[in-house]
Amino acid sequence: MTREALFDQIRQKESYLCVGLDTDIQKIPAHLHSAEDPLFEFNKQIIDATHEFAVAYKPNIAFYEAHGVKGWQSLEKTIDYIPDDIFVIADAKRGDIGNTSKMYARAFFENMACDAVTVAPYMGADSVKPFLEFEEKWVILLALTSNAGGKDFQNLELTQGGELFEEVLRKSAEWGSKEELMYVVGATRAEALTGIRKIIPNHFLLVPGVGAQGGSLEEVSRHGMNDHCGLLVNSSRGIIYASDGEDFATVAGTKALTLQEEMKNYLNKFL
Amino acid sequence: MTREALFDQIRQKESYLCVGLDTDIQKIPAHLHSAEDPLFEFNKQIIDATHEFAVAYKPNIAFYEAHGVKGWQSLEKTIDYIPDDIFVIADAKRGDIGNTSKMYARAFFENMACDAVTVAPYMGADSVKPFLEFEEKWVILLALTSNAGGKDFQNLELTQGGELFEEVLRKSAEWGSKEELMYVVGATRAEALTGIRKIIPNHFLLVPGVGAQGGSLEEVSRHGMNDHCGLLVNSSRGIIYASDGEDFATVAGTKALTLQEEMKNYLNKFL
Repeated sequence: MTREALFDQIRQKESYLCVGLDTDIQKIPAHLHSAEDPLFEFNKQIIDATHEFAVAYKPNIAFYEAHGVKGWQSLEKTIDYIPDDIFVIADAKRGDIGNTSKMYARAFFENMACDAVTVAPYMGADSVKPFLEFEEKWVILLALTSNAGGKDFQNLELTQGGELFEEVLRKSAEWGSKEELMYVVGATRAEALTGIRKIIPNHFLLVPGVGAQGGSLEEVSRHGMNDHCGLLVNSSRGIIYASDGEDFATVAGTKALTLQEEMKNYLNKFL
Repeated sequence: MTREALFDQIRQKESYLCVGLDTDIQKIPAHLHSAEDPLFEFNKQIIDATHEFAVAYKPNIAFYEAHGVKGWQSLEKTIDYIPDDIFVIADAKRGDIGNTSKMYARAFFENMACDAVTVAPYMGADSVKPFLEFEEKWVILLALTSNAGGKDFQNLELTQGGELFEEVLRKSAEWGSKEELMYVVGATRAEALTGIRKIIPNHFLLVPGVGAQGGSLEEVSRHGMNDHCGLLVNSSRGIIYASDGEDFATVAGTKALTLQEEMKNYLNKFL
């Protein structure tokens, strides 16, 4: 999907919501356990209930991989089921030397119809570039993550100036344009977005950590939005596990709608 | 597998060879393409021919994942086929926030009988620790990789002193002991091993990049060995693709034997 097509969809749906499909067999409603493929059945109903309000889905690959071959089947069926006009992010956090990264790129871009894959930056340019060779496909590079351990290395000060995550932004922005490269930037540090926008004004940011925690969507939008919106804000648990009863999909739809309505306001206010 | 059991195996086989199963459908001999499961058939014959000389196998997960469900089946069969007394490394370079890393740990430690998984450090402590909760299982953390892009971030100088990869070693050594944590250290920088051994004298190192390139095994062994050997030296292409004919397994066995004989010398010399 091109950047323009993504922006079109954002304007049309008045939403920059990404729904995280972190589908945990231990957390899905009990009545689905008897389904032939519980993970897929859960995702199917979540997608049916939320696709009007979301511009992206983000299955976290770990939750499928944990079930081996069976989980991989649930993942492939889920990705096939997502409507074609919605952006699909394989949250895989992959990254390896060149010929190996190319294999991962094939897994998600050719074998499955994902639009983007999340990539870890530690191994540098030749671990990222193979993903960028695929037309209309995207790398979403980890820059500043919102987990407690994020600060262990990402905020280390460099003698050349700035912190490690800033150098990740600066250097990687030379590898790929705003048409093919996005960044993961944790929402718990909305104030950091102003500084980040100075380094990469035009790239899209994937912002996790909004929704379940709540409260910071306005700040993220205020500090992070650019002239193409430039934000995909993810909510996983806050939507998909909002109810653990038979009404889980309906409740998920309501939660997604609430976020979409909030986003509509911020698009009017900040875009 | 415990550290002592691994060391026992090293002494018994007089080898610290890890064979990398980077099994690429485009590179395996043509006559295997008609097999029901070409990737597994290739691996099976490689394992049969090399298991006497190797103490570890390291399938790189990307090469299997690129084939989706089918590739995942080949991977599971391969891991099942590896003899129980040999150390199995899932070269997956995973890493995510806590509950998600736990899912990856389950994928490789419970769903498959791997002994170790490679993990990327960028997301910090809570992305690594979930892997360490599994008894007699190992994290092999990326520290200094031998690819060209390795220097993009790993060698950045920190204001607190030292380079990023040294801080990765120092900080992570507080998360896990030498009984559960190893490090990936690229062989193209054998001289760096002396400095690395000052920071982590007792941990095992997984050293890729020996064999196909050749020549540095002696230097790696001289600078890297400790009182428990402390080295697993990987060779992938130099062994598994040494011949692309019907004799590929025999030739692979010969290559593995040659490396084992060299390692026997270095064990006598440096241990």
